[in-house]
Amino acid sequence: MNGPSLALRQRSLGDPATEFPLFPPLTRGCPKTSTDEIAYPLEITYDYARVDRRLFEQEPGTDIARWSPLLPPLEAPSLGEGGTPLVEFDGVHGAPRSAAHRRLQNCIYVKDESRNPTWSHKDRLNRVAVSAAVASGAPGVVVASSGNHGASAAAYAARAGLPAIVLTSADSPPAVQAFVRAYGARVLSVPAEKRWPLLREIVERLGYHPVSNQTVTHTGHPFGPEGYKTIAYELFLQLGRVPAAVFAPTGYAELLYGVWKGFVELRLLGLAGTLPRMFSCETAAGGPHARALATGAPAAVVELGASDAYGIAGPVGGHRGVVAVRDSGGAALLVTDEELRSAQRDLARQGLWQELSGAAGLAGYRQARLDFDGPVVCLATSSGFKDVGVGVERFPVLEDPTLEDLAPDA
Amino acid sequence: MNGPSLALRQRSLGDPATEFPLFPPLTRGCPKTSTDEIAYPLEITYDYARVDRRLFEQEPGTDIARWSPLLPPLEAPSLGEGGTPLVEFDGVHGAPRSAAHRRLQNCIYVKDESRNPTWSHKDRLNRVAVSAAVASGAPGVVVASSGNHGASAAAYAARAGLPAIVLTSADSPPAVQAFVRAYGARVLSVPAEKRWPLLREIVERLGYHPVSNQTVTHTGHPFGPEGYKTIAYELFLQLGRVPAAVFAPTGYAELLYGVWKGFVELRLLGLAGTLPRMFSCETAAGGPHARALATGAPAAVVELGASDAYGIAGPVGGHRGVVAVRDSGGAALLVTDEELRSAQRDLARQGLWQELSGAAGLAGYRQARLDFDGPVVCLATSSGFKDVGVGVERFPVLEDPTLEDLAPDA
Repeated sequence: MNGPSLALRQRSLGDPATEFPLFPPLTRGCPKTSTDEIAYPLEITYDYARVDRRLFEQEPGTDIARWSPLLPPLEAPSLGEGGTPLVEFDGVHGAPRSAAHRRLQNCIYVKDESRNPTWSHKDRLNRVAVSAAVASGAPGVVVASSGNHGASAAAYAARAGLPAIVLTSADSPPAVQAFVRAYGARVLSVPAEKRWPLLREIVERLGYHPVSNQTVTHTGHPFGPEGYKTIAYELFLQLGRVPAAVFAPTGYAELLYGVWKGFVELRLLGLAGTLPRMFSCETAAGGPHARALATGAPAAVVELGASDAYGIAGPVGGHRGVVAVRDSGGAALLVTDEELRSAQRDLARQGLWQELSGAAGLAGYRQARLDFDGPVVCLATSSGFKDVGVGVERFPVLEDPTLEDLAPDA
Repeated sequence: MNGPSLALRQRSLGDPATEFPLFPPLTRGCPKTSTDEIAYPLEITYDYARVDRRLFEQEPGTDIARWSPLLPPLEAPSLGEGGTPLVEFDGVHGAPRSAAHRRLQNCIYVKDESRNPTWSHKDRLNRVAVSAAVASGAPGVVVASSGNHGASAAAYAARAGLPAIVLTSADSPPAVQAFVRAYGARVLSVPAEKRWPLLREIVERLGYHPVSNQTVTHTGHPFGPEGYKTIAYELFLQLGRVPAAVFAPTGYAELLYGVWKGFVELRLLGLAGTLPRMFSCETAAGGPHARALATGAPAAVVELGASDAYGIAGPVGGHRGVVAVRDSGGAALLVTDEELRSAQRDLARQGLWQELSGAAGLAGYRQARLDFDGPVVCLATSSGFKDVGVGVERFPVLEDPTLEDLAPDA
């Protein structure tokens, strides 16, 4: 039942009547509706009438090809992405709640995306985006990223036998720099302002396929968010229903939009009757989607302050996040580093060690203080190993330890 | 069909006629057959006649409770362990082989255990061992470990609401020290020779449940290897058959033995007709199982030289590894750090970044140069983030990058 891709065309988010062929992927946004101030992204349309509903009788598992009819053609091999667990989170205490307590209250769940091949959600996007590079016959892949996205693109390119160039910054934690370099890509640490002109030159002169944004407001890769739809499919099967709300760590909002689109498709296919409210959880140091929603703009660029949540802290927003929040009746939340640290600590105290950015979903849920008529999902995107400061702190050695050293106040 | 545990008793590996009740778990080896020189571990027996074979019509997934009839009682909650992908490895080139080539040769597969909740295989063991602590009514869990095992035990204890004490060493990489501390356990860095007396004191005076070895040759937790059996169950379903050989990174050989026992059970249940050959892949700096097998001893302790594969480098072996290699017609292989680095690099060039120890399975397979009549599985146990040296190296920033900086010889 998971046969070939039923993808049809690229469609502009600036005007749904504006469509383009599926290839080549329009990696600089919609050429018709974009302006000098706002670039509009594209999404992919499918021949939904031909989708076999038995697709959703499958169990989730580690290869998003099980959803191939609802994805662009997967020409790049899998590294076993997807099939991540949904872990119940107790919002109050350290231990899971009792069964009796659970029946009384709706549950909070954590979707642990640190369980992907390069230990972040980005692998779902890169399976699809690197597939576009392969399908386009590109001689290589180029990405500008200081962390998860660069490493994931490098891993999928390596798997597909394509050379990769990663333009990174010197700001990312040393362990993450080793991570990005591990997969054999050409990695250049360059000043932030030099990344985008160099990326463009590599695309134009070497013909490399870009899996990073190249526009004034974010558009990114037109196929990328399609990979994130698989999170919605998995949640639907894992919960046996559509959640009431989804809280997502949000930088460019590709994740938020992709998950939203997945649920929209489930309703369109007649499999689900409801839609979740989508909450964009951005760092208070920036928050371009919160700004756009507050001002009624289709997208926004903001000043960026200091934050350790480097995985989601960026000045540039896009139209996708605005669509997901607006159409779902959700909200854009701005979480401080302090709120992120609190959420990160409490996730770890229940056995889930997340990167600071990865805890933004839970931090947003806690800040919102809303009641929902159904289960709530907080997306947790990445492993704690990738955080700023990991590996920096040194700990003392007790040369002559005794039981007294274990006293709570020792 | 995955009902309650069918576990019956603890049985000595020193003498299969020597049995004990299932509780309390005998965490100091078999009290009847052990001597001053050799401690014998225990295994768990089950009421196999009552196992519903439909258990193996399930798909693998992220909670080993799906195999609960064939595990000790799982009293500790899941963090979503297991259900890891099986990724094909091309032993020659960077890219996956063609379908035609695949038909001609047996495939090499990598079972990527870095996809567990704390990004190593240890989570399968700790779900089971921490469950034993909960079932025993212990007030806490104590573990001596400088890495994956300590962090995993801390995560599962946190999830179960049990306090944990981790006795670690100052030698482990700084990022791993942060990892072990992330889950809220009491962590003490103590000199290596002080760890075992302090562990014993914590067990005896505080009543904490030990999930580390306490005997002269390795016995460890009697329930622990049962968690690793689930790897065999998953491999059987993922391959649709029993592999011809399994190569496992080996320190204490709990992994090697657990996987072996899982396949023995599949044959006993009439589901499989064959058994794999089991290969213990130990660091050449030590290799207690290779020594025991070469000398005919039931277990051995060796001098330990220098190795960066700290996850598997230890002087103390146990009887489990001897049984798995001997009974399966396998071999114990000694791999150098150089062979490990080569395997690690080639795994990363196919998109899988493993800890040095985690690459020992592939390193062993390459060293053995054996032909097998069927698929070969190399277990890959842990994420590259945990390695010695990760986060230490600094990389230069190119202030004025050009395309020329991307030349292969730049």
